[in-house]
Formats: sequence, C-alpha cells, structure tokens
Amino acid sequence: MQLISRIQQALEHQMALTDRPDAPPRLMRALRHAVFPGGARIRPQLCLAVAAACGEDAPELSDAVAVAIELLHCASLVHDDMPCFDDADARRGLPSVHRQYGEPLALLAGDALIVMAYQSLARVGARHPTRLAGLLQTLCDGVGAPSGIVAGQAWECESHVTLGQYQRAKTGALFVASTRAGALAAGADPTPWQALGEHLGEAYQVADDIRDVMLSADVLGKPAGQDLQHGRPSAAASMGIDGAVAHFRALMDAAVISIPDCPSRTGLQHIVRLESERLIPSDTSDKRLAIGADTAVRVMPLVA
Amino acid sequence: MQLISRIQQALEHQMALTDRPDAPPRLMRALRHAVFPGGARIRPQLCLAVAAACGEDAPELSDAVAVAIELLHCASLVHDDMPCFDDADARRGLPSVHRQYGEPLALLAGDALIVMAYQSLARVGARHPTRLAGLLQTLCDGVGAPSGIVAGQAWECESHVTLGQYQRAKTGALFVASTRAGALAAGADPTPWQALGEHLGEAYQVADDIRDVMLSADVLGKPAGQDLQHGRPSAAASMGIDGAVAHFRALMDAAVISIPDCPSRTGLQHIVRLESERLIPSDTSDKRLAIGADTAVRVMPLVA
Repeated sequence: MQLISRIQQALEHQMALTDRPDAPPRLMRALRHAVFPGGARIRPQLCLAVAAACGEDAPELSDAVAVAIELLHCASLVHDDMPCFDDADARRGLPSVHRQYGEPLALLAGDALIVMAYQSLARVGARHPTRLAGLLQTLCDGVGAPSGIVAGQAWECESHVTLGQYQRAKTGALFVASTRAGALAAGADPTPWQALGEHLGEAYQVADDIRDVMLSADVLGKPAGQDLQHGRPSAAASMGIDGAVAHFRALMDAAVISIPDCPSRTGLQHIVRLESERLIPSDTSDKRLAIGADTAVRVMPLVA
Repeated sequence: MQLISRIQQALEHQMALTDRPDAPPRLMRALRHAVFPGGARIRPQLCLAVAAACGEDAPELSDAVAVAIELLHCASLVHDDMPCFDDADARRGLPSVHRQYGEPLALLAGDALIVMAYQSLARVGARHPTRLAGLLQTLCDGVGAPSGIVAGQAWECESHVTLGQYQRAKTGALFVASTRAGALAAGADPTPWQALGEHLGEAYQVADDIRDVMLSADVLGKPAGQDLQHGRPSAAASMGIDGAVAHFRALMDAAVISIPDCPSRTGLQHIVRLESERLIPSDTSDKRLAIGADTAVRVMPLVA
C-alpha cells in the first residue's frame, strides 16, 4: 500500500473513533473539514518512511504516531488561518475552518485536534510501554513551547527574531519530530535521523516562502503574498528569490547526504531528490513555478 | 506540605523547564500570566487527594499528572475568555490573557498549555511505563472530543443540547479525569473513583451557574451574568436559584457517599462537606453568597 493511502486510512480510523453519537455534531464536521481531504501529508509520510527504514516491527504504532503528527499539523493550520493571525479565507482550495464553521468552532477544532493527536498515541501506547514516553516527549517537542511550532508562530509576535530561529521552530520542529518519531516507533535510536528532519524542515519553509511570493492563490489553494502582508521573516524577502532557491537546493542536498546508512538509503535519497524538484522545479527562469495544486497529493510515492 | 503548596511548586518547576532562553519571551510571559497566581487549584488537589487515598507510591508522577490537569484547565480558561467566546476582560481579578497580550498570544498560550500538560506527563512517564498509557488516555478523555471540556464548550455552538450533557462535558469530564488520574498515578484501579469526579464536576458547574447569577464581578474576579448574556445552558436558569441550590446539595451529598472505602474516607468526606459549604453557604436567604474572592486559594486544606 502506498504510504499516503495508509495514512489516509489511519486518519479515517482515528476520526471515526472520536465521531461518536454523543459528540457535538458541528465540532465533528469542523474536525473532518480540517483533516480531509488534506494536503500532501508530507510529515506523516516522512515518519512512516523512517520507521520502514529502521525495520518497522509495530506498524500500528507507526500509524498512530504518523496520525498524531498530521493532526498536530492540521491543528496549527486551523489556528494559523484564524482572523487574529493570517485571516485566511481558504486552505487547500476550500474555505478555512473559521470561514466555514465560525471562529468559536475553529478555535475548538484546533484544540480538539491537538488532543486527538495524543489520543491516537494513547490508543496503542499500552501495547508498547517502553516506546511510549519517548514518543510522547518527541511529539511535545515538535509542537509546544519552547521550540515547537507554537513557539514558531509566537516568534511572529516578537520584535526581534532571526530567520533561522523562526524557521526551526515554525516548520523544522515538526519535521524533526516526524523523523525521530518514525525511528522511535520502530524501536530504533532517533538521533541519526535528527539531521534529516532539520534539513527537510528548513527546506520546506524556504520553499513555502518562495511559493508565497511566486505562485497565485489559485495554485496555492490559500492566499498568496502572506509573508509580506504580515511582515513575517521570509527567506525570499531576506535573500531574494535566487538566493532563496540556492539555499533551498543546498538544504535538500544536505538532507540527501544526512540519511543514515540503512538498506533503503538509496531509495530515500531518490525520493528526497524528486521532492526537491517537485517543490521548486529546476527551471524557474520564468519566475513562475510550473506546479499544479493537484500535485500536492502525489508526493513521496513510497510503497510500504 | 499542604497540597496547594505542592501543586504550586510543581507548576513552577514545569514552567521553569519550558522557560528557556530560546523560548519566545512574550509567549512565556503570557503562559505565566495564564497559570499564576491561579485560582483554587481544585482539580489538581482532587487528583493528589485521591492518589494519597490510594496509597501514593510515586509522588513525582502524581505531581506531574496534577500539573497536567491544572494546565489543561488554565488552557480552557484562556481560550474561553477570548473574544469569540466570552470576550471576558478579567480572570481571577487580573486582565484576561488576550487583554494583556493580545489575541494571537492568547490563542498560542492556550495551545502551548495543552501541550505543556503532556510535556509534564512525558517528563516522568519513562520511569512509570506501565502507568503511562492509562494516564495519557485519561487526560485526553477529560479534555478532548467526543466528551471532554473542548466538546463541552462546543455544545455552546449547537442548537440542541441537554443541560446534563453540556455540564458533564464542560466541567465534569476534567473532574472525572482528576479522580481517575489520581488513582492511576498511584497504580490503583480508577473505576471506584469515577463517581466522585462525576458528582463533584456536576456540583461545581451548578455552583458556578448559581454564582454567575448571584455574585458581582468584583467578587468573582471575572464578569458576572455571562450565562444569560451568552444564552448558555444554566442550572440557575432552568431550575431557579432554589432548585439549583437543592440540586447542588444533592450532588455534594452523592459525592460524599461515593468515596470508596479507604483509610482516609472520613477525612475526604469532611473536606467535601467543607467545600460544599464554601461554594454555596447554607445561609443564602439574602440571595447574596458571603464569599470573598480570597477564599479561592484556601480550599481543600489537605495536608499530605
């Protein structure tokens, strides 16, 4: 089964467990809206790919962790889109959650998704007691204060922040959690996988900065030009487009090199190179990236 | 040491672990503002009291769980106070978090507090692997969808909800989590402690409804008359003051009776009776409760 199908099934399963007759029905609809159909599911794919590379022996645990990571990502998108931040009308080509269900349910949906991430882990955790604490810690590191994605977003409220500090927290932290958690779910040492998460995380944020400047809202499925509008640190703004593209390539090269020795090293390296080309195609001479929104669901086509 | 002092120390310890030099400083100030000086800390006191009654053998685990429960409660207060819900200017006699730090940081502070609750559990969880999954599940049940406090708040966005359903989720669920988690932290069966959490949770919500109608903002430390203003289900509105007070007494009586056989049963029962009198004094003939805001920090004076 392709990783993305496996993730989709696991997300559906977790959502169905929550969507009980005694749950508030509009909240449940808001939760589904926030999670499905979803974007590229890059982070959970990365988590599962690392678990497989580490000799995955507990697929139900990797699934639960991958689900948790995607739910935490979805939660951050719901809250980031709200009027007090981006005030974004659209996400993934659909109305943002607060546009569809109102601010109160968007706020609660984000909260519920954070908790649902931990529910996913709790559900299978009892069967893997020696791996649970490390996984719990890793998820928390990726999303909370002092240096997870919540902290990354909070840096936007500070008067002084470096680009690297901001990007490491806002995007990098959950990528690091994804690679580390993949290893931990397989009972492996997470340390050798840290650098892959760091490089990919920074590269994705740089790519996002470039795409925010170069692509239209139509292609992005969300408003364009947000970084400039909100005065946020941006690689495209601070390095220029060419500088940012070169930085992106260097980060993806570093990601390729960082992949630890394992039977699937060559395959993983190939996927990272494909992903690099998908995000920022080599031919950007016309300053318009030739990417359709539909490609968002075709990335990292690993077969498990 | 009194339970409340122990909780205060444990909260300070968890906050200090998060408040690192690389954390966004304004977010950290907002987090401290949301947690300190704090209210009555009823839920974590309940958790520790049950742990003690169950023969507590891992105080660092009970502390971590009690901290987690209080942080989840604080998170819900921060988000509930925001403009899209209560739009409350004050909480515990101080400006609400969004009034002091703005909406973006209030939103993020709530998110970070939810995650910090799990960080607290993760920190000591590795030393208690066989208790961790149950504790994690219990915390999630108390706060998330389908029936935790997030769901309770979401019922306010539905057109049909029963008072009991609303109260069980909005307040009862975290009280149930508090008693169950106290037992689990001590390695005991949580089932016998479920009813105490249910009865106390519903009683506190009824008391809150009564106080919202009868007390001034000055005494409450937060705006009064909120239930009526926001059209929320309220025991005081649906049963009248006298009916609500009688219901409150019945619930506290049921809580007293429900306490399982244990060496500290009589002491716990005495505390519940004192707490009943503190919340809603027997002499309410002038329809004004003779409670000062300062009593909020003197409840459940258990000595550990």
